[in-house]
Amino acid sequence: MQLARVIGSMVSTRKCDRLEGLKLLVAVPIDMDTFREKGSPFITVDTVGAGEGEIVMWAGGSSSRQTDLTTNKPVDSSIVGIVDFVDIEGKRVYSKGQET
Amino acid sequence: MQLARVIGSMVSTRKCDRLEGLKLLVAVPIDMDTFREKGSPFITVDTVGAGEGEIVMWAGGSSSRQTDLTTNKPVDSSIVGIVDFVDIEGKRVYSKGQET
Amino acid sequence: MQLARVIGSMVSTRKCDRLEGLKLLVAVPIDMDTFREKGSPFITVDTVGAGEGEIVMWAGGSSSRQTDLTTNKPVDSSIVGIVDFVDIEGKRVYSKGQET
Amino acid sequence: MQLARVIGSMVSTRKCDRLEGLKLLVAVPIDMDTFREKGSPFITVDTVGAGEGEIVMWAGGSSSRQTDLTTNKPVDSSIVGIVDFVDIEGKRVYSKGQET
Amino acid sequence: MQLARVIGSMVSTRKCDRLEGLKLLVAVPIDMDTFREKGSPFITVDTVGAGEGEIVMWAGGSSSRQTDLTTNKPVDSSIVGIVDFVDIEGKRVYSKGQET
Repeated sequence: MQLARVIGSMVSTRKCDRLEGLKLLVAVPIDMDTFREKGSPFITVDTVGAGEGEIVMWAGGSSSRQTDLTTNKPVDSSIVGIVDFVDIEGKRVYSKGQET
Repeated sequence: MQLARVIGSMVSTRKCDRLEGLKLLVAVPIDMDTFREKGSPFITVDTVGAGEGEIVMWAGGSSSRQTDLTTNKPVDSSIVGIVDFVDIEGKRVYSKGQET
Repeated sequence: MQLARVIGSMVSTRKCDRLEGLKLLVAVPIDMDTFREKGSPFITVDTVGAGEGEIVMWAGGSSSRQTDLTTNKPVDSSIVGIVDFVDIEGKRVYSKGQET
Repeated sequence: MQLARVIGSMVSTRKCDRLEGLKLLVAVPIDMDTFREKGSPFITVDTVGAGEGEIVMWAGGSSSRQTDLTTNKPVDSSIVGIVDFVDIEGKRVYSKGQET
Repeated sequence: MQLARVIGSMVSTRKCDRLEGLKLLVAVPIDMDTFREKGSPFITVDTVGAGEGEIVMWAGGSSSRQTDLTTNKPVDSSIVGIVDFVDIEGKRVYSKGQET
């Protein structure tokens, strides 16, 4: 899985029926070397109540459909967790609410 | 999922039977940092009645087969929504029909 | 899906039983911006009777197994159509048999 | 599959129910040409009791769900083995516990 | 599918039960433009009795699990054929046992 920051949302009224009711968010990849944004934004489905600005974990491909909300739906990216802490080599490199 | 702009169409008469009746479109990726085209065009299946020039959301891989039209068909990209609005960090960065 | 040009073929006698009888072709990606070859050749399974020199559409990953010929076989790329026409922004950019 | 070194861990309390109880680790890709780290860290699920500093083999995509721990869970990367030896062209290029 | 040359092997004693008995090889991608190695080595499962030095065809992702040996196993790359000949534009560009 990869980390990303939620930066926005998308609205589509004419869409595949199976997508009805799903919250479509815009996220941008977070590089875990620097915890900065790196790469182009993408569309992902929220399954955990993520809010704008939060750093989240997302799963891609068929794995993104392994949630109750996304089963059999044409989504290839889902947010599956909100990140509280990341520790690398014994150091806390990220702690939710304490970003600088 | 990713955004793309529909720029054309493709016709194939000698093709896998299961593709009969599907509308094959040409789309080009849209970078959400700039909302400009970025990258090479690709072929995608229309499942929502997308028209040329429209910005659409597409799903890839096995996810592109999770629509009534594409189930069990050899497609690895499907258009699953037409984009109305995209908001990033509180600003409306895209609104259908108001592109500049 | 992506376009490619068939440029050759491959023979393997010691192979997975399930691949028996499949025609393994060599294809090279076609960039739809220029309709020229771009990138490295790859191996793909012919499901439509494609011949050398033809521009074809291929599907990748699990999607390549959604044909009668390739079901449950260890293939990750299949040719699923021979391209007749490609129109981009109202112009016919490719027409089979009229390449220059 | 690819090799990676375990360098840390991640905690998420608000997450997809199906992820409960899984150990989420941070790993960084190992280039087998040099056995050095190369590329950005990522999140992966431990299925074998891997510890920080160990070089592991991981599987991605739907393959990462083919373990008893990860079946039907929204994970797209799983650690499936701890590497003891790697031999390339007759030379032992990696031996666990004897890294320099 | 892609070509690769087998250059070594890997041993893992602490691994997912389902991987027991599978032969894990190290392979390096072969660029079909030049038939030289290009890119970083990776781990792949042998399903055809491939030996070191041989050029093989491998399938990735869920396709790598479509063999009797790899069904339901956490592998994302399998060798599914040993290459005898490759012909490109009417010329034999590779013939097993006659490499220079």
